Amino acid sequence: MDIATVIGLGLGVAMMGLGVVSGGLAIGDLIDIPSILITFVGAAAATIISFPWTSTTGVTAVIKKAFQNPTFDLPNLITTLVSFSEKARREGLLALEDDINELPEEFLKKGIQLVVDGTDPELVRNIMETEISNTAGRHFYGRSWLDAYAGFAPGFGMLGTLIGLVGMLKNLGGGDASAIGQGMATALITTLYGSLAQNLLAAPLVRKLTRRSEDELVIKQVMVEGTLSIQSGDNPRIVKEKLASFLTPSERAALKEEGE
Amino acid sequence: MDIATVIGLGLGVAMMGLGVVSGGLAIGDLIDIPSILITFVGAAAATIISFPWTSTTGVTAVIKKAFQNPTFDLPNLITTLVSFSEKARREGLLALEDDINELPEEFLKKGIQLVVDGTDPELVRNIMETEISNTAGRHFYGRSWLDAYAGFAPGFGMLGTLIGLVGMLKNLGGGDASAIGQGMATALITTLYGSLAQNLLAAPLVRKLTRRSEDELVIKQVMVEGTLSIQSGDNPRIVKEKLASFLTPSERAALKEEGE
Amino acid sequence: MDIATVIGLGLGVAMMGLGVVSGGLAIGDLIDIPSILITFVGAAAATIISFPWTSTTGVTAVIKKAFQNPTFDLPNLITTLVSFSEKARREGLLALEDDINELPEEFLKKGIQLVVDGTDPELVRNIMETEISNTAGRHFYGRSWLDAYAGFAPGFGMLGTLIGLVGMLKNLGGGDASAIGQGMATALITTLYGSLAQNLLAAPLVRKLTRRSEDELVIKQVMVEGTLSIQSGDNPRIVKEKLASFLTPSERAALKEEGE
Amino acid sequence: MDIATVIGLGLGVAMMGLGVVSGGLAIGDLIDIPSILITFVGAAAATIISFPWTSTTGVTAVIKKAFQNPTFDLPNLITTLVSFSEKARREGLLALEDDINELPEEFLKKGIQLVVDGTDPELVRNIMETEISNTAGRHFYGRSWLDAYAGFAPGFGMLGTLIGLVGMLKNLGGGDASAIGQGMATALITTLYGSLAQNLLAAPLVRKLTRRSEDELVIKQVMVEGTLSIQSGDNPRIVKEKLASFLTPSERAALKEEGE
Amino acid sequence: MDIATVIGLGLGVAMMGLGVVSGGLAIGDLIDIPSILITFVGAAAATIISFPWTSTTGVTAVIKKAFQNPTFDLPNLITTLVSFSEKARREGLLALEDDINELPEEFLKKGIQLVVDGTDPELVRNIMETEISNTAGRHFYGRSWLDAYAGFAPGFGMLGTLIGLVGMLKNLGGGDASAIGQGMATALITTLYGSLAQNLLAAPLVRKLTRRSEDELVIKQVMVEGTLSIQSGDNPRIVKEKLASFLTPSERAALKEEGE
Repeated sequence: MDIATVIGLGLGVAMMGLGVVSGGLAIGDLIDIPSILITFVGAAAATIISFPWTSTTGVTAVIKKAFQNPTFDLPNLITTLVSFSEKARREGLLALEDDINELPEEFLKKGIQLVVDGTDPELVRNIMETEISNTAGRHFYGRSWLDAYAGFAPGFGMLGTLIGLVGMLKNLGGGDASAIGQGMATALITTLYGSLAQNLLAAPLVRKLTRRSEDELVIKQVMVEGTLSIQSGDNPRIVKEKLASFLTPSERAALKEEGE
Repeated sequence: MDIATVIGLGLGVAMMGLGVVSGGLAIGDLIDIPSILITFVGAAAATIISFPWTSTTGVTAVIKKAFQNPTFDLPNLITTLVSFSEKARREGLLALEDDINELPEEFLKKGIQLVVDGTDPELVRNIMETEISNTAGRHFYGRSWLDAYAGFAPGFGMLGTLIGLVGMLKNLGGGDASAIGQGMATALITTLYGSLAQNLLAAPLVRKLTRRSEDELVIKQVMVEGTLSIQSGDNPRIVKEKLASFLTPSERAALKEEGE
Repeated sequence: MDIATVIGLGLGVAMMGLGVVSGGLAIGDLIDIPSILITFVGAAAATIISFPWTSTTGVTAVIKKAFQNPTFDLPNLITTLVSFSEKARREGLLALEDDINELPEEFLKKGIQLVVDGTDPELVRNIMETEISNTAGRHFYGRSWLDAYAGFAPGFGMLGTLIGLVGMLKNLGGGDASAIGQGMATALITTLYGSLAQNLLAAPLVRKLTRRSEDELVIKQVMVEGTLSIQSGDNPRIVKEKLASFLTPSERAALKEEGE
Repeated sequence: MDIATVIGLGLGVAMMGLGVVSGGLAIGDLIDIPSILITFVGAAAATIISFPWTSTTGVTAVIKKAFQNPTFDLPNLITTLVSFSEKARREGLLALEDDINELPEEFLKKGIQLVVDGTDPELVRNIMETEISNTAGRHFYGRSWLDAYAGFAPGFGMLGTLIGLVGMLKNLGGGDASAIGQGMATALITTLYGSLAQNLLAAPLVRKLTRRSEDELVIKQVMVEGTLSIQSGDNPRIVKEKLASFLTPSERAALKEEGE
Repeated sequence: MDIATVIGLGLGVAMMGLGVVSGGLAIGDLIDIPSILITFVGAAAATIISFPWTSTTGVTAVIKKAFQNPTFDLPNLITTLVSFSEKARREGLLALEDDINELPEEFLKKGIQLVVDGTDPELVRNIMETEISNTAGRHFYGRSWLDAYAGFAPGFGMLGTLIGLVGMLKNLGGGDASAIGQGMATALITTLYGSLAQNLLAAPLVRKLTRRSEDELVIKQVMVEGTLSIQSGDNPRIVKEKLASFLTPSERAALKEEGE
């Protein structure tokens, strides 16, 4: 469980509840089924048009990712790569073949396999970086459904309010102040929903997924640099120095101690 | 038929209908011919100024594309390119000449023809990538009519509302509450139309066309990489590995099985 | 005459007229000289500050361009360049000297002259691309006056409305509903003007000029590629293939037929 | 004096005055000392936080620049550089030493001095382009104070209006229409100030300074190209051709005539 | 203490206080605990979702940085690097080993150590620039929490106002003008808070941190260029010239005098 997603959502919902109570309303006063449909399903409709159907069916898997903890461990990866580099210097590149299956990541396995197979370094980089850039593209497409949703939600909230206002205004003559107030209150609820869908749900999740993706791509970039350093037979100390540049100062200090 | 475009549009229209009914209005209350003309034709007028006349006449063809299913099949293309690469290694580049006409795509035909003709690899890449970047530009121009329309629609919606408000306010003195309400309701309808034109029609279609174009350009990029790999006589296994980097993990797994 | 600019403007003005009539107003109700000055001249004032004085005096020439038809013909240019390439292969680069004056474009003349003079290819590209990038910059500056105007117009429209509202509110106590309505109607007119100046005039013209400029720069890019191909003595068939990458599929088909 | 800045400011102030008069107000009705402080000083406060203290103290020098005429003369610079190139070809690079002090610009002096000292061309370019990019950065920082101010001004205008509205609404019960109108009018004045500060002052000055900076950087780029051409002993005719690519067509024609 | 941050905040708070007083309110009238929670905690909730939990716990350290004075001294660094370059020319690169520990910066120590160890220059640049780009990324992530907060604050302010308006409108019938005014005033307070959180707190701090980061990265870039110049044995005069390109004209003049 990603604790930040859970805490943030809980806190946000609590604050909205506080607003409702301190505004002299009951929670039920803000729940209006047609308004929910117009705003949430309407924004979903516009988003569905915007994407291939598979993006829409795959969006729950994407959202789930924002609730899960990331699993990568960069310092650990660097330690593994350095040990591979030492082994390759001692026993040759072919000796790595036995260790490939122990690697935790398909992407790194593939890279080391290419190296063991004696592929040209330029080509190894080319293949690995093409995959990185296509992974980046896939991540981008995955979260862009939510991003589009975040963009459409306030628009559909406003559409609901406009329709509600027109309805209320058409009957302005016959109504008393109380009825007018009720009409406007109902009309405003979709604007509230649209803003909530954007600000508390879709936009924060898009940001979380963006950051998650960037972290994963750095991991993959370290794998590329490590693989190529191993192939070119760099000094393991240099490999460590080079890959440590991707760490934060505190991670780097930890890595240093451990290595000595 | 692109199912997502159809489902999304249907859903969106249904939600708007629900809003009308739950707002105590009849559908007819929201249909006002002058308002339709001011918003939709007004926004079209601004868009027409923005482009060459041929862009305006060609926009229906562009819109139609958003309703059609894409036809490309990336894994299949890769299989074809790998088999070409094997043939070229066995029988030489000239042997590919007979197979060119079987290729499904003008762009790939041209690339392989250049290779068979013995064109310099640098030039092959140059010619193919120039065409890709010009195709990208054409796609961009095609959808930018709709993109401009999406941008102008809310502006013309607001213009209609402003004109309506001025009309209503000029006669404020003589009118009763009911007439004022009617006037404001009518004035607001163009804002509603403008928002609808942007959020349910133009903006989602622009997004769909953008994604469609990006997918087509990836296909073309795979064709370039494949053509150049064939020309340089790369090992077919490497060609497959290289092109597979453009696939999603699941497509890649499928390709692997099939190849063994 | 650029037909799209004329049709679009006519249509846009007609739609605004329709709005006025259907809102129960006379055209004269929306014409208010001080409001026109505040919005249109005010936005011009801010734009004048933003640029060198020569940009302001040159803006009518820029606007005029959006009403004129473009004159370039890309397929025709390619045919000329291919014939130059053939002549250069047959008779040497010096033989092109006689044909330079027939060329329709200063930029291409200069390029071919440099080639005939035996200038280093790297330098030819350098000189031609510097000029392209400076032309792009000049086009950008030309239209950015209008772009700034499009950005300032709604702001000055709102300023006019704010001043009008303050005036109306200061006298709220003594006025009847009719006077208040009149005051607000007049205040709103500048917002309407500002939106009109942006949406129907300045923004569409900026888009048109942007596209016009991009088309001209592609032409110039084709001239660069053609000139350098001629200089390096490329096979005319290859020159044609290379330059044809800049064409649309239909233009390319036409070029092909003609060439055979 | 930069005439455009002066004319634009005068015109803008005149239009605002016209709005005041035609709205039935006296100029004094729009002058409210607390409102001025809240908007202008408030926006300055947020901008002061945003920058190092030296940026705030240096902003008047930056603003002054927008009122001064630029002093560079590109055609004249090119003529100088071409004559240097001729002299260097005739008498050697060392012969330029005597002319360095006649050069009007520190940056060019430094470049030619490096050439005379026999510095490696790659290093000359490196040193000069580093300085250009750092000059660009300094210009950017200089005007970004104003840019931030332009962004904060409407926000503080709105803050003032919100505070005013809360004050007015809190006393809604006891007040008559006249008092309410007065309250709202005063509340709106800060929004008006914020918009004015952005649209008539800060944003146009930022645009002017941006353009000014770009023009200066082009001058410096010409100096780099000229210096390197002189060092590599290019033919003066080629130097002229190359540098002339940075001119407008009319400047280029003038340069040509003069040179013959 | 960063004096600009303190002065700006003090000034901003004073201006808001002035607005309150001149609007006929007491400070207490604008303090409403539920409104504070809805806006400030609500925006924090959305931001918490957007980031890993460690970003949220680390944000106070980031904010503290905006209140501290930067400690780097670029001219001094250049003097140090030039003296290192002189020593390396006189006594060889190994002689620098003793001076490494005197260096004030981990990053420069590491670079010089790599040089002393005889690492390949390409690799030294690679390692150092990887670290710069990862430092830039870390700075970016550090301030992006605040940036997201600045973006969410107005949204939650509006959400609070919408909830308040719905509450007020639901009870419109029974209330007198005074109660309506009180309701609207309270509803507006969250919008005011949201705007304040963005304009006076988060957005200026983000700008300050951005600038601070850019300054630090320039320092690091100078360290890279200096280290590589030392390694390649450049003439100390050239090293000075090269690094001086990163200085402002006045810093450069000061450096020159001191050096002579």
